[in-house]
Amino acid sequence: MTPAMVREAAHRIKPLTKRTPVLTSRGADSLAGASVFFKCENFQRGGSFKIRGASNLILSLDRSQLERGVVAFSSGNHAQATAIAARHVGTQATIVMPLDAPRSKVAATRDFGATIVTYDRLREDREQIAAGILAATGATLVPPYDHELIIAGQGTCALELLEETGPLDALVVCLGGGGLCSGSAVIAHDLYPSLPIFGVEPERANDWHLSMQAGHRAEIGPPDTIADGLRSPIPGRLTFPILQHQLEKVVLVTEEEIRRAMSFLLGRMKILVEPSGAVAAAALLSGKIPRTFARIGVILSGGNVDLKLLADGMLIS
Amino acid sequence: MTPAMVREAAHRIKPLTKRTPVLTSRGADSLAGASVFFKCENFQRGGSFKIRGASNLILSLDRSQLERGVVAFSSGNHAQATAIAARHVGTQATIVMPLDAPRSKVAATRDFGATIVTYDRLREDREQIAAGILAATGATLVPPYDHELIIAGQGTCALELLEETGPLDALVVCLGGGGLCSGSAVIAHDLYPSLPIFGVEPERANDWHLSMQAGHRAEIGPPDTIADGLRSPIPGRLTFPILQHQLEKVVLVTEEEIRRAMSFLLGRMKILVEPSGAVAAAALLSGKIPRTFARIGVILSGGNVDLKLLADGMLIS
Repeated sequence: MTPAMVREAAHRIKPLTKRTPVLTSRGADSLAGASVFFKCENFQRGGSFKIRGASNLILSLDRSQLERGVVAFSSGNHAQATAIAARHVGTQATIVMPLDAPRSKVAATRDFGATIVTYDRLREDREQIAAGILAATGATLVPPYDHELIIAGQGTCALELLEETGPLDALVVCLGGGGLCSGSAVIAHDLYPSLPIFGVEPERANDWHLSMQAGHRAEIGPPDTIADGLRSPIPGRLTFPILQHQLEKVVLVTEEEIRRAMSFLLGRMKILVEPSGAVAAAALLSGKIPRTFARIGVILSGGNVDLKLLADGMLIS
Repeated sequence: MTPAMVREAAHRIKPLTKRTPVLTSRGADSLAGASVFFKCENFQRGGSFKIRGASNLILSLDRSQLERGVVAFSSGNHAQATAIAARHVGTQATIVMPLDAPRSKVAATRDFGATIVTYDRLREDREQIAAGILAATGATLVPPYDHELIIAGQGTCALELLEETGPLDALVVCLGGGGLCSGSAVIAHDLYPSLPIFGVEPERANDWHLSMQAGHRAEIGPPDTIADGLRSPIPGRLTFPILQHQLEKVVLVTEEEIRRAMSFLLGRMKILVEPSGAVAAAALLSGKIPRTFARIGVILSGGNVDLKLLADGMLIS
């Protein structure tokens, strides 16, 4: 994974992605004691940064690969992103989703023209199902994070942010599989080699924290957190060694801190950010990033929230 | 009211206001059958466009006027805007608010350093109270819309929008007292003399609709609508004649159309817009703007929503 790959990705994915705005807020600055720059990937196509990686991979396929289609397994943002990118290039996307995936996300993915294959999470193995489809069709797998083209695509998010803000003193990014964070680290450190990068994950999904302490990829039990996009139980095979060297620190946030950050972003900044998308902001707003930085970049990674949950008061503190 | 006054205002209010972003959405474009440009005043300082007019007036005061302070009566966005602008120039703001104003708005206004004077809506006359304060202190009244400097300040919103988008085929703006809409019309027609401008108000607060039909300012009973910022019962004395000549049409929207627009803006575009701020979008998204325009500008005028109401499911359809 090289910085050049991120720059190539930035060029490649332009027709399929938005250059999302960078917002600022006096209220956030005063809470953080710093100038904070929020990169709003909740406004991205498909509602999250995931379109960056998926489109970088899919736009790199040759004609014979495109004829055989693409496959992804995801119940969330990566599914929609893969479906959107596949439709753009006219290839067939098959998305393997659990039977109990949110109906709204299944419907959105189907609306983008994808074929949905469902499976029973308790009885069936999704990797086996995907392997069967791949073997039968010769389709290309679009993994959610562990692929150089995916990581490079996600890195374009930090590239755009830094192009807009210029030098920063710290960058704060969420940690799920690690695609967004590792791509961002690679390009950010190419531009500013000593920039401290903080990776943030829920206390209840602390696989990165434990893995960094252990010095190797550690797996945890199925995480139970409202940040549904950060529930992967183990760091990625490619992303872990990148971040092992490039991350300043893993910061953990509580469920309540995530809800409070969502409420701040919604009530004060008027933007809807999903729980996973709000963890980086949660770390900053709850005082868990050292107060020694004057200019801090924060990636708000997505905004796909079920409005029913919001109207039920589940996500606001 | 001249276009030059709007341009002067744009220069004057720069230190106190944000240049808010213009957002686009494929989903909105496809619903509207047009390219739609949303001017996001929900991201403005104080959460609405009101800071534009208030700061234009307050920054025009001379030293002796500033020493005597400013007065406004408002239970909502204009109160906060006046308090912010007053603090910026170091003058004392006195805000006359009803006893039953939302606590969060009273607290926010007090936080900006304003003195709050409360009154009983059923027994006391707020104009009389304000007149008493003005007589006793020699302070300057900052009216919510019926003042040339207020109208010129609000017009900077459309100026910024048109600077960013270039020529549009239609502009859609909410109608309360008419300050935002008339200021926008004056500058928009200076730039593009034949641009059709649609003013939108709730069916339940149809004073502009009735006044336009009657050919004179008609007063209605106290409007009962979730769009609390558009409850003024009669068009402004200055704003009515401006819009009588410059408005293409008054469009009426139902409470349900307002809620559906809020839900679309939140669920699809990830932005929180208050009911009053969503009426212009409601007219467009519910098909009430003629489908003959290729490029349409819509002003989202504010985003101050009580999150408790949102969490109670009151505002989402």
